[in-house]
Amino acid sequence: MTDETETQTGWLRPDEIESARREMPIVYVDAVPVRVDVRGEVTHVGLLLRVTADGTISRMAISGRVLHHERIRDALIRNLEKDLGPLALPRVPPSPAPFTIVEYFPDPSVTGFHDPRQHAISLAFVVPVDGECRPSQSSLDLAWLTPEEAVSENVRREMTGGHDRLIRLALSHVGVLP
Amino acid sequence: MTDETETQTGWLRPDEIESARREMPIVYVDAVPVRVDVRGEVTHVGLLLRVTADGTISRMAISGRVLHHERIRDALIRNLEKDLGPLALPRVPPSPAPFTIVEYFPDPSVTGFHDPRQHAISLAFVVPVDGECRPSQSSLDLAWLTPEEAVSENVRREMTGGHDRLIRLALSHVGVLP
Amino acid sequence: MTDETETQTGWLRPDEIESARREMPIVYVDAVPVRVDVRGEVTHVGLLLRVTADGTISRMAISGRVLHHERIRDALIRNLEKDLGPLALPRVPPSPAPFTIVEYFPDPSVTGFHDPRQHAISLAFVVPVDGECRPSQSSLDLAWLTPEEAVSENVRREMTGGHDRLIRLALSHVGVLP
Amino acid sequence: MTDETETQTGWLRPDEIESARREMPIVYVDAVPVRVDVRGEVTHVGLLLRVTADGTISRMAISGRVLHHERIRDALIRNLEKDLGPLALPRVPPSPAPFTIVEYFPDPSVTGFHDPRQHAISLAFVVPVDGECRPSQSSLDLAWLTPEEAVSENVRREMTGGHDRLIRLALSHVGVLP
Repeated sequence: MTDETETQTGWLRPDEIESARREMPIVYVDAVPVRVDVRGEVTHVGLLLRVTADGTISRMAISGRVLHHERIRDALIRNLEKDLGPLALPRVPPSPAPFTIVEYFPDPSVTGFHDPRQHAISLAFVVPVDGECRPSQSSLDLAWLTPEEAVSENVRREMTGGHDRLIRLALSHVGVLP
Repeated sequence: MTDETETQTGWLRPDEIESARREMPIVYVDAVPVRVDVRGEVTHVGLLLRVTADGTISRMAISGRVLHHERIRDALIRNLEKDLGPLALPRVPPSPAPFTIVEYFPDPSVTGFHDPRQHAISLAFVVPVDGECRPSQSSLDLAWLTPEEAVSENVRREMTGGHDRLIRLALSHVGVLP
Repeated sequence: MTDETETQTGWLRPDEIESARREMPIVYVDAVPVRVDVRGEVTHVGLLLRVTADGTISRMAISGRVLHHERIRDALIRNLEKDLGPLALPRVPPSPAPFTIVEYFPDPSVTGFHDPRQHAISLAFVVPVDGECRPSQSSLDLAWLTPEEAVSENVRREMTGGHDRLIRLALSHVGVLP
Repeated sequence: MTDETETQTGWLRPDEIESARREMPIVYVDAVPVRVDVRGEVTHVGLLLRVTADGTISRMAISGRVLHHERIRDALIRNLEKDLGPLALPRVPPSPAPFTIVEYFPDPSVTGFHDPRQHAISLAFVVPVDGECRPSQSSLDLAWLTPEEAVSENVRREMTGGHDRLIRLALSHVGVLP
């Protein structure tokens, strides 16, 4: 999860975000981008390669804040475009219900989902993406992996904060967990 | 629900279908075709206009059997193409879970969903449709209605077998029930 | 939605809540309490009778904030006990995914769900309740209505902020929308 | 999946079931019994120990046919009681929508879910069980395993037909996949 764009475009200054983070849960959206075949079945899952706050390199799903007075659909589109570029053509699902809720805590022992900065409650969606993706901003790369590759030990080791589990929950939801 | 194509392309002769219908529940898929905006929100729902078995005219969702050895995704695509034509470009959702299960009984008092011919168990999906739709075969017309129009008294009266309720369940699932 | 207990037990003073409300979306849980039969089918839905902020009397579902560092399950249990008493025996569903997300805005035209005080994002759950319910605190009464009664014009008129729609979405989710 | 009770109590003679199996998909329900804590979180998953058709011993979820004119809720309760005994007190979820659909094929390469006898379409549910369970009929044992135990290599090797994957899909749905 990164806040770069949010602190540029949002309503809060960095010190105000810091203050809010100490006081209440922050609403996020997590999006797992996927490629689907003509029958709608997921064939690949997209993982960003990123430099995290502590300097290590990590694979992750797309994640970002929901801003004040922003619809959840708009937050999803905004965060998907921020990370995949303007030509990705994401297909946000018609149902507003997330497939799961991820509760991130500064203490990794609470849920296994970990965010050192804050208590975040994230609505998680699987989003088919049809267009051309160009990882933008802070991402080094975007890799499209098969379900088998995405749950392999090698790839799981490259994910932090519980995102390896988020990917498996997403693959389960779409019925292709190996 | 019609069986015309199924009896042509399927594995069963009409008398065999009759026999099976007296003995066990028959698996169906129901598809509610929708138009969505760029944010994924449903703007219109598609209703077929059909002559039913008893000669009356009725509005309905798309409904058809799952054939022997057929995947559910393939049954959805086949039934959508049968009723909307080959250029409809349906987007079958990545998750295999239907948003609801509809249990049709010959006795309308059991669930309110009614099929005089059989006990049918139908997996119901909301399917965004991007392409051009040409109602084919036994359909007289396909109308795209707003959620408000689709739940209006006038339109509800034109639906039978519980399809007016199916439409409201679908609109609820996608969060746009008026 | 009321904040009485939250401001007593939570981490924020009233002025701090006011400040946060002007800056970011606030996380809520909405719970629709139901009675189910032995087969799990919903027979009744529970509606609170309350005096709202503007002095009018209104029927509504259970709604309350998720506190800082609080698990969503714990927020559900806390808000259910606050409104139904300690003997209600709520059965929070095993899945963490809400059946829908309700987006409340100060401007009622955005989604139809309205909260004059804030932008609230609420995770909505249907919660079977087995025990004895005693509406506590600010509630005048708790009424158990059949699905037919709950969607009747009379009852719908007594609900504000979009809760009449929330009830219909909940009844759709459990397949008993009349 | 076993048919013993069904052939005794159902509408079909064994030779009729054989005939239907060669002609159309058969509707099943799969139930993953779980123990939950007071907050609704899954703590244990129940697995039956069974002698399969080919004489090997296998762990599995509960699975059985939906009979002609039987409601899905009733099929779930009947199959749960058949395998867990009459004091199990299963809590069938209020929503009729299964968390996933399992498509079993005689050819294991189609979906990975395998039934040598038939093409079965199974509606899968997670069912909290409160009471005392006594595995009855053809089951040798019922074991309550933690999520970690249930997905361990040892236990996964004891499951056939794809039930190890069904268990992981169920644990994902309830958010406790390790």
